[in-house]
Amino acid sequence: MNDLHWPALVTLAALALCFATAAIVGKARVRYRVAAPATTGHEMFERAFRVQMNTLENAVVFIPALWLCALFVGPLTATTLGGLWLVGRIWYAVAYLHEPKSRGSGFVLAYVAWGGLMIAASWGVLRGMIAG
Amino acid sequence: MNDLHWPALVTLAALALCFATAAIVGKARVRYRVAAPATTGHEMFERAFRVQMNTLENAVVFIPALWLCALFVGPLTATTLGGLWLVGRIWYAVAYLHEPKSRGSGFVLAYVAWGGLMIAASWGVLRGMIAG
Amino acid sequence: MNDLHWPALVTLAALALCFATAAIVGKARVRYRVAAPATTGHEMFERAFRVQMNTLENAVVFIPALWLCALFVGPLTATTLGGLWLVGRIWYAVAYLHEPKSRGSGFVLAYVAWGGLMIAASWGVLRGMIAG
Repeated sequence: MNDLHWPALVTLAALALCFATAAIVGKARVRYRVAAPATTGHEMFERAFRVQMNTLENAVVFIPALWLCALFVGPLTATTLGGLWLVGRIWYAVAYLHEPKSRGSGFVLAYVAWGGLMIAASWGVLRGMIAG
Repeated sequence: MNDLHWPALVTLAALALCFATAAIVGKARVRYRVAAPATTGHEMFERAFRVQMNTLENAVVFIPALWLCALFVGPLTATTLGGLWLVGRIWYAVAYLHEPKSRGSGFVLAYVAWGGLMIAASWGVLRGMIAG
Repeated sequence: MNDLHWPALVTLAALALCFATAAIVGKARVRYRVAAPATTGHEMFERAFRVQMNTLENAVVFIPALWLCALFVGPLTATTLGGLWLVGRIWYAVAYLHEPKSRGSGFVLAYVAWGGLMIAASWGVLRGMIAG
C-alpha cells in the first residue's frame, strides 16, 4: 500500500462527498421552494446548505493536509487518517440532516483525523528541513 | 501537448475566474450599498455573491480532479475536460448575473466536464492499483 | 532554501489559519447565541463568520497559486510571496474582528502577494511551454 494511489482514492471519495452534499442542496432547493439566489427560508434547506458548506470548508483544508502527509510522511499514514476523516464527514452529514444537535461525533472524529494529518505533515516537513 | 504545463494553465485560468467573480462582488457591494459583513440586501448583490460562491465551490472540487486526471490518466485528457469546465463556468457566471433562470446550460456543461474528470481519474487510479 | 519544504510549511500555516478562523466562529456561535444552522443574528458573530469565509475563499485560490509558483518558478519566490500573503491574511483577520472598516491594509497586502504568485506562475508556465 506504499504508493500514492491510495491518497488519490481518498481524495476522489472526498470530492464525491462534496458533490453528494451539493446535490442534496439542489434537491432541497426544489423541495422546500427556496428559489436561487436565496440561501435561507426553510429549516430543512438551511440544514442541507450548512452541511454542504461545512463539508466543502473542511475539504479545502483536508486535501492539502492529506497530500502533504502523503508526500512528507508516507501514503499509509495519509490514507489511514484520511479514511477516518471520510468516515467522520459522512457521519456528520447524515446526522446533521436528521438532527442538527447530533452532528457532534462525526464532526469531532473528522477534526481529530485532520489534526493528525496536520501534526504528521508538520513533523515530516520539519524533519526534512533539519535533515536537508 | 503531453506535459503538465497545460493543466497548470487551466488551473491559473480557474483561479483568475475565481478572482474575477470575487471582484464583481466587491463592486456590487459598493454599487448596491450592501455594507460588510452583510451578504444580503439587494437582489443584484445576491446574484453576484451566489456566482462567486458557486464558482469557488466548484473550483474546490475541480482543481484536485483536474490534477488527479492529469497525473493518473494524462495531461491531454485533463486539459480537454478542464477547458470545457472553464467554458461552462464562464457561461454560467455571465448568464446568472443577467438572469438567474438562464444559468442552467453553463452549469450543466461544467458539471459534465467535472464528472468526466472524476470518472477518468477514478479509472486511472484504479487501473494503477490493479497493475501496481 | 531551494526546496519544497518551505512552500509546504507556508501551506501548513495557511491551513492552520483557516482552522483558527473557524474556531473563532465556533466560539462566537456559543458566545452570541447564534444556534446552527443560522449564520446571522449578531454583528460580532457575523464578523467572525465573514473572516472565516474570506480566509477560506482566499486559501482556495492561494494554495494552488503557491504550488504552481513553487514548481514552475521556484520555492524561494513562492515562499517569499506566500509568507507575505500569510502576514496580510493574519493582519486582515485581527483587524476585521476589531473593526470591519480597518480590514483594508491586510486584505490588500494579501491580494498583492497572491497577484505576484499568479503573475510569477503564469510567467513560469508560459516560459516552460515556449521552451518545451
